[in-house]
Amino acid sequence: MQVLLKKIVEDSKKLTCQGNVASYIPELSKANPEHVGIAIVQTNGKVRCEGNYLEKFTIQSVSKPIALLQALIDNGEEEVFSCVGMEPTGDPFNSIIRLETFDGSKPLNPMINAGAIAVTSLIKGKNNEERFNRLLEFFRKLANNPDLGVNEDVFQSEKNTGDRNRAMGYFMKDLGSIKGSVEEVLDLYFRQCSIEVTCLDIANIGAFFANHGRDLKTGEQLVPVRYMHIVKTVMTTCGMYDASGEFAVNVGVPAKSGVGGGIMCAVPNRMGIGTFGPALDKKGNSIAGLNVLNELAKELQLSIF
Amino acid sequence: MQVLLKKIVEDSKKLTCQGNVASYIPELSKANPEHVGIAIVQTNGKVRCEGNYLEKFTIQSVSKPIALLQALIDNGEEEVFSCVGMEPTGDPFNSIIRLETFDGSKPLNPMINAGAIAVTSLIKGKNNEERFNRLLEFFRKLANNPDLGVNEDVFQSEKNTGDRNRAMGYFMKDLGSIKGSVEEVLDLYFRQCSIEVTCLDIANIGAFFANHGRDLKTGEQLVPVRYMHIVKTVMTTCGMYDASGEFAVNVGVPAKSGVGGGIMCAVPNRMGIGTFGPALDKKGNSIAGLNVLNELAKELQLSIF
Amino acid sequence: MQVLLKKIVEDSKKLTCQGNVASYIPELSKANPEHVGIAIVQTNGKVRCEGNYLEKFTIQSVSKPIALLQALIDNGEEEVFSCVGMEPTGDPFNSIIRLETFDGSKPLNPMINAGAIAVTSLIKGKNNEERFNRLLEFFRKLANNPDLGVNEDVFQSEKNTGDRNRAMGYFMKDLGSIKGSVEEVLDLYFRQCSIEVTCLDIANIGAFFANHGRDLKTGEQLVPVRYMHIVKTVMTTCGMYDASGEFAVNVGVPAKSGVGGGIMCAVPNRMGIGTFGPALDKKGNSIAGLNVLNELAKELQLSIF
Amino acid sequence: MQVLLKKIVEDSKKLTCQGNVASYIPELSKANPEHVGIAIVQTNGKVRCEGNYLEKFTIQSVSKPIALLQALIDNGEEEVFSCVGMEPTGDPFNSIIRLETFDGSKPLNPMINAGAIAVTSLIKGKNNEERFNRLLEFFRKLANNPDLGVNEDVFQSEKNTGDRNRAMGYFMKDLGSIKGSVEEVLDLYFRQCSIEVTCLDIANIGAFFANHGRDLKTGEQLVPVRYMHIVKTVMTTCGMYDASGEFAVNVGVPAKSGVGGGIMCAVPNRMGIGTFGPALDKKGNSIAGLNVLNELAKELQLSIF
Repeated sequence: MQVLLKKIVEDSKKLTCQGNVASYIPELSKANPEHVGIAIVQTNGKVRCEGNYLEKFTIQSVSKPIALLQALIDNGEEEVFSCVGMEPTGDPFNSIIRLETFDGSKPLNPMINAGAIAVTSLIKGKNNEERFNRLLEFFRKLANNPDLGVNEDVFQSEKNTGDRNRAMGYFMKDLGSIKGSVEEVLDLYFRQCSIEVTCLDIANIGAFFANHGRDLKTGEQLVPVRYMHIVKTVMTTCGMYDASGEFAVNVGVPAKSGVGGGIMCAVPNRMGIGTFGPALDKKGNSIAGLNVLNELAKELQLSIF
Repeated sequence: MQVLLKKIVEDSKKLTCQGNVASYIPELSKANPEHVGIAIVQTNGKVRCEGNYLEKFTIQSVSKPIALLQALIDNGEEEVFSCVGMEPTGDPFNSIIRLETFDGSKPLNPMINAGAIAVTSLIKGKNNEERFNRLLEFFRKLANNPDLGVNEDVFQSEKNTGDRNRAMGYFMKDLGSIKGSVEEVLDLYFRQCSIEVTCLDIANIGAFFANHGRDLKTGEQLVPVRYMHIVKTVMTTCGMYDASGEFAVNVGVPAKSGVGGGIMCAVPNRMGIGTFGPALDKKGNSIAGLNVLNELAKELQLSIF
Repeated sequence: MQVLLKKIVEDSKKLTCQGNVASYIPELSKANPEHVGIAIVQTNGKVRCEGNYLEKFTIQSVSKPIALLQALIDNGEEEVFSCVGMEPTGDPFNSIIRLETFDGSKPLNPMINAGAIAVTSLIKGKNNEERFNRLLEFFRKLANNPDLGVNEDVFQSEKNTGDRNRAMGYFMKDLGSIKGSVEEVLDLYFRQCSIEVTCLDIANIGAFFANHGRDLKTGEQLVPVRYMHIVKTVMTTCGMYDASGEFAVNVGVPAKSGVGGGIMCAVPNRMGIGTFGPALDKKGNSIAGLNVLNELAKELQLSIF
Repeated sequence: MQVLLKKIVEDSKKLTCQGNVASYIPELSKANPEHVGIAIVQTNGKVRCEGNYLEKFTIQSVSKPIALLQALIDNGEEEVFSCVGMEPTGDPFNSIIRLETFDGSKPLNPMINAGAIAVTSLIKGKNNEERFNRLLEFFRKLANNPDLGVNEDVFQSEKNTGDRNRAMGYFMKDLGSIKGSVEEVLDLYFRQCSIEVTCLDIANIGAFFANHGRDLKTGEQLVPVRYMHIVKTVMTTCGMYDASGEFAVNVGVPAKSGVGGGIMCAVPNRMGIGTFGPALDKKGNSIAGLNVLNELAKELQLSIF
């Protein structure tokens, strides 16, 4: 198995020259495009790592499923889905255009930026600091890592350059999908996206999803199975931007990618997988990560279909 | 189990008054809205039926996954997906508008009408009669029913009133997604949609999908596993019109519905399910069928997520 | 004046190398891209011509305002605008996408293809032959040329390759904007577009528009002033495809262009202008024609604004 | 003439019950829906008024053509139209959706909100105060009224509730159509919309447009004729929201309406017209104003077509 991982990582490293690291903020553009890492956490607790698995990167959109879980816990299913839809969409990761077309004037689903911002606006707390601390604690628990924290440089850059997200925020404020201060919601959202993780952290989160919301060690049911189903479903249908359909065919498991280079996967009952590779393809997905997962899915027959 | 099925069918019958049978052609509007039937075929061969499971109805859009399999067998994956995409979409079942926006000028996926018409245009044969006969034989084999045939009245009505499909056909002809005669392709497509089936027929087809393309009796691999994966994936992300996301959350298995009132499901490794209930909700899905499957999914823990 | 025209035509000839003749059917691609002609017919009857003003070309979209007049005469304003809108649109000449978005499910205006097809479907006659003969007689009267006829080769080619127009026809049939046979409507529409004219013919038509619907010789009011206003308005706002705004700023008179290379202008109370130049820019307008009209508008202060 | 005006105003008053005053901010909702006023300023200096012509209201979108003139004077034609298009659009006054579809990523034209905000961002000044003072002076000169000023209550309310405009501002910032601070641009834009005027003020502005940019008294050419043409053209094609086409047919002169109840018209070479009537139809145009202008256009044959 370790031999297999090593070979897949090496083969994937060769493909990284075909992509580019995200460059919309200077902090992301500093990443080494040749880095490739993988971590696997089985639901029985076994862990395997290979490549640059100790490298830190910002979680970015991989945070969306976790924030959605927190919002569901805080508000219940009905409240959350009154502000955001659950229908698939093949739209690109930076689209604003379909907002207005959606029936009921809400974003189509929680994995696109607009929907994720609406979801983050639902996290409870008496002020933004409390909201973020609650969210960070939840991330730490799922990742089994009490040291998770924010990369302040990335956070500040995201905040300074986030005009498209700001546009969506004010648009949803106008539509009523967001209550309260748009700037506060965006502050919280950018902070959530700037949490620093390693492959192993997101593999642990993936294993929590694979284990249907039960803590791997204690077996305690931390999140209702129903909420886990919801989140894994939207990950499957919309987790990989407009390559979600292709990914479902090739790999066939719930997953979420981020422009920081991470991909988090959950193979139900079996394992969580975290991959890292900051060189992205045109759709915003990690080139090495996709290749690692394609190969692994074939070798280990991971598809749920 | 039989008691459970009986109770679920009875409960679902009460909901049928909330929907309406399809009425765009007279033949469909004659269906009895109170009919509810279910058939389950396990991959080990066991069969269970309940309610109006002997009632015949036209297969309509439930034919799309089967035609896609045939097109894949006839042309290979690359050729098929040069004419149609595989990305999810939450669009309604009768939409024409997104055609032109799609990158590469092809329909978004094979489960929407435009995509399904493009797929049907790829079925091989020296003339339309041979093409249809090949397709019908394939349906008969998967349904384990040599007597399947076309409802000629429905076929003629579909053909006479199919102006929206005709518009899509000529548009794709202009884009190059369809070669050959549009009228011939539509003739074949309408004929495919007019095949008459029972719950049991589509449950058998579902079982074939659940069995990864192997014949249930002989174990022979009739269709490559890769093609089965492709089709089950697009069923999961786009099989239930713009309620696909909600269905994936609630039931969580690959499925396809049709306006004739049928829903075909494939529970990997376990069973195929066919439901019938001609009273449809506003999105075009069978009201009773949805309820039967929601209940069954809870009781039998069917979700793949 | 004649010196001025000669200079403008010569200058415009130099620009023709920047464009291309329409090539979607072989007959149009045979046109000589260097041809440039102009004809001016003043409302007092004076005529001036220069360049290739005797060259014949097919009228194509320049037919749209005339067919709209005929449809208004045959059906009245209310009936016509129940099938087509009168709001401006900057969409390209071959767009199908906005059809479905339009409030009331009708095409936005009579100068886009979809709208023009709906308009043509309203022309009265007991069969298609009578409808076309009535329309042709109207063209002959406005052009003051009893010899106008159809280029049969162009007509046949348009008919054989018109799948995009066919798509729009069937879509409007489905929406109810077109009654009767789509193929008959398209036959009539393609025939109307294939009428052969010279610059002088369309300059005469322009003069009729400039004269508010009165015959230039007899002074007889052939078409109500109200209908003339309607048509000149939609020409101003949508007559030059998605360069209509720019043309209104630069030239400032009601005009209609066609991919055959013609542009017809009406300068209220003063003159009709017809230009010919088959080399088109990317928006489908004649490059030489645009330049001739820009120069003339400056010299003669033609703008109505 | 005065008798005619009186009759038209009285007839129009009866229609006001069919509309509603704007209510998105409390200040606008306080307007008396039965108010109807008109002022006509001929290019020879003669003035006629009738009805509630002394009533003050905020200029709102009627400010757009004047701000566009100022931006053209400050930056030239090329610079302005690198940030905003000049193509007509029939979209409603509050649309955000077409922004992204536009070729070159700029708003379609300067009469829609997004385009107007981009235009306002181009007004020169070393800070926002200077920018606004320059703009206000320009308004005062064109309106021949040194006392024009801002309604501070309306300004504050616009600023507090302008989330949709804020969304558009940040979106254009992201696209590069707006440089500098979005909040400053919006502050300037809301201030410009909150200038208080009477019918007579906007009739004077209309007369300046009708006089091709020459001062009515001194004959001095204050604004180049070319810029006047540009602005009158976009007023004609897009000045009345998505009723621009219908208005051009019925009235046939360059005009701009605002949700404060005003409509400003320019009849080239003849007169400026200002109407006031705060009861609006569903498209955001003054019901009484439209009727006054329809009647007047018929009586005085105002159409430029």
